[in-house]
Amino acid sequence: MKIAILGYGVVGSGAYEVLTKYGYDVKWVLDIRSHPELGNVLTANYDDILNDKEVGVVAEAIGGLEPAHTFVVKALKAGKHVVSSNKHLICTYYEELHTLALENNVTIRFTSSVGGGIPWLYNLKRSIRCDEVTKIMGIMNGTTNFILDAMITDSRDFDDVLKEAQALGYAEANPSADIDGLDTARKTAISSSIAFNTIIKEENVSVFPMRTVQKCDIEYIVGRLGKTIRYLGFGVKNENSVSAFVEPAILSYKSPESNVVKNFNMITLFGQSVGRLSFFGQGAGKYPTGNALAQDIIDIVNGDTALCFTPHPTPVDNDALKRSYYIRTTASVDGELIENKETINGNNHIITKPISVNSIHKLAKIILESDSGSFFAGFEE
Amino acid sequence: MKIAILGYGVVGSGAYEVLTKYGYDVKWVLDIRSHPELGNVLTANYDDILNDKEVGVVAEAIGGLEPAHTFVVKALKAGKHVVSSNKHLICTYYEELHTLALENNVTIRFTSSVGGGIPWLYNLKRSIRCDEVTKIMGIMNGTTNFILDAMITDSRDFDDVLKEAQALGYAEANPSADIDGLDTARKTAISSSIAFNTIIKEENVSVFPMRTVQKCDIEYIVGRLGKTIRYLGFGVKNENSVSAFVEPAILSYKSPESNVVKNFNMITLFGQSVGRLSFFGQGAGKYPTGNALAQDIIDIVNGDTALCFTPHPTPVDNDALKRSYYIRTTASVDGELIENKETINGNNHIITKPISVNSIHKLAKIILESDSGSFFAGFEE
Repeated sequence: MKIAILGYGVVGSGAYEVLTKYGYDVKWVLDIRSHPELGNVLTANYDDILNDKEVGVVAEAIGGLEPAHTFVVKALKAGKHVVSSNKHLICTYYEELHTLALENNVTIRFTSSVGGGIPWLYNLKRSIRCDEVTKIMGIMNGTTNFILDAMITDSRDFDDVLKEAQALGYAEANPSADIDGLDTARKTAISSSIAFNTIIKEENVSVFPMRTVQKCDIEYIVGRLGKTIRYLGFGVKNENSVSAFVEPAILSYKSPESNVVKNFNMITLFGQSVGRLSFFGQGAGKYPTGNALAQDIIDIVNGDTALCFTPHPTPVDNDALKRSYYIRTTASVDGELIENKETINGNNHIITKPISVNSIHKLAKIILESDSGSFFAGFEE
Repeated sequence: MKIAILGYGVVGSGAYEVLTKYGYDVKWVLDIRSHPELGNVLTANYDDILNDKEVGVVAEAIGGLEPAHTFVVKALKAGKHVVSSNKHLICTYYEELHTLALENNVTIRFTSSVGGGIPWLYNLKRSIRCDEVTKIMGIMNGTTNFILDAMITDSRDFDDVLKEAQALGYAEANPSADIDGLDTARKTAISSSIAFNTIIKEENVSVFPMRTVQKCDIEYIVGRLGKTIRYLGFGVKNENSVSAFVEPAILSYKSPESNVVKNFNMITLFGQSVGRLSFFGQGAGKYPTGNALAQDIIDIVNGDTALCFTPHPTPVDNDALKRSYYIRTTASVDGELIENKETINGNNHIITKPISVNSIHKLAKIILESDSGSFFAGFEE
């Protein structure tokens, strides 16, 4: 079975190098840019790939929705297996792509779309074959972890660390997708969809950004509460529904997440029989992510084409789960909700009684109208 | 494809429950004890399984060398895939069993033999398809981790914690295999054999026990050095050889291993393209280990029968790797080796200059003749 890679950017070229070094047969690379080193392997015409009966697996590493979506749909309809590193595509078209894959008796894999080099989604898919996953959670974004880790370890300011992350290439010039949570929300939606065999869209995931975190929050959480903080995506199975949310999370110093330093990721499942199972590694980068894309391809080349399931929609309900929250704001907060409150330099540092995820996210909108710099974090441990 | 499980002990019964709950077809369970709940599935006659053409995969969960070895060899020769949770068997007969599997065009899987519920070996096998693993290391034994974690967290004595571990069922009445390192040595041998596609025997692995660790060591390492300690197995690729050893290891508090609490395990590979990749979870127990055995079986039932490689022996050479060591002893140590020495309550707490793994293990034998309670640990970070 021969391989085609769509897109010769960071991830596509990483996968190409990994695969060819180990003797896997990449027959085509699709890219509209010039890459003389690829010789006859390069094409700008997708029909070369689609009409090539030797190509059994098409790996999409273009990113974005179009033309990636059109290309992937055509590949599935042509009976070719599909691998993708594109979280935006997978999150948006999860149901359509799975339905098409099953109809055409092929598989679709997208391990590299969440967690970079970490074989998280692949192992999550294996787990649900013979276990009930009750919860997933994880540090799925290296940029926000780099920022929080530096703020905690070196007592630095948010803006200062963000600039360093941009200089190091961890954060984009416009860092919104990272620090406002869209990147983690998509990864949470995809992970939860697999874990609970359902379809969770990015708009179903309640998101607290981490961009409002300040030095005074770190000082309070670390110094006063004796805890630490990470930016996590969560999917939780309730009795008849699923909760999905992205939040700064306050954790014990003994939690495995608290020792995830720099831009590393750690993603965890809780299974009824296997217990806690966590995966730690590089969540981004040419070779880690290229490696994960290559692994999905090699599985398929080796004949491992199972692990493609028909999703059965379960309602998303963020009212079903209650936890305590930390709020730092200059706004006033309803006293009935407050478990503890301390005012320091004009900021109210509030710890709430248990409140549903849905309620706190609604309340946050009101609080943010009075103080747009307010910061919210859930207590995880 | 139907399944046979050999042995209905802790792991075998765990796998049986997991598989049958999810609709996998376990046709036979071999056990000489009475298990009325198994009905016609139970047999005490291995020929029932061997001669059953419907049985495509035989899962060995008997433990020990015989009759497990005879049964597994017969299964492979009969063209049946083999899965095993038996580290003693796999470690002892690694080459023979792989050769037999390849000759008979079947696969042998043994993920559950190392790391309990953690899909470590499975993912390690996937990794080496398109990456060069340069090092593996891990907390592979829950009992020793439970002891060290409690000694550090609660300032308790070794004997006291060992008794608690025995009461909780984590440690055996005779805990030697755990605290003298044989269990970790076998897991290190198997992991290194896969990582470097070679054959490492348990007798090739240099082992420092952890049973001589004392409260004064924890006080020195934590209080004086600001570090922590875990019991680790290591496999390292050198230019033309492999080093393999099991040692108490002194680690930074920021290392992922330092937050592995209680009886959890964490095992790591370092790959040239994927970077650091760590797996964390329950390293033992009926359902975690039964789950891992079931996962290997399900892979094979699904047609994923690759990942069986011909090993190419690489020499084991523990002279090729140098590191610094901590020694606590009342014996005298050659001054040329000493980087730092403090004497507290009659004990010399020594930090050595870099010395080869082989040399320190030879030296330890001499030191132990003078002071059999001496303790040795390597600096990992």
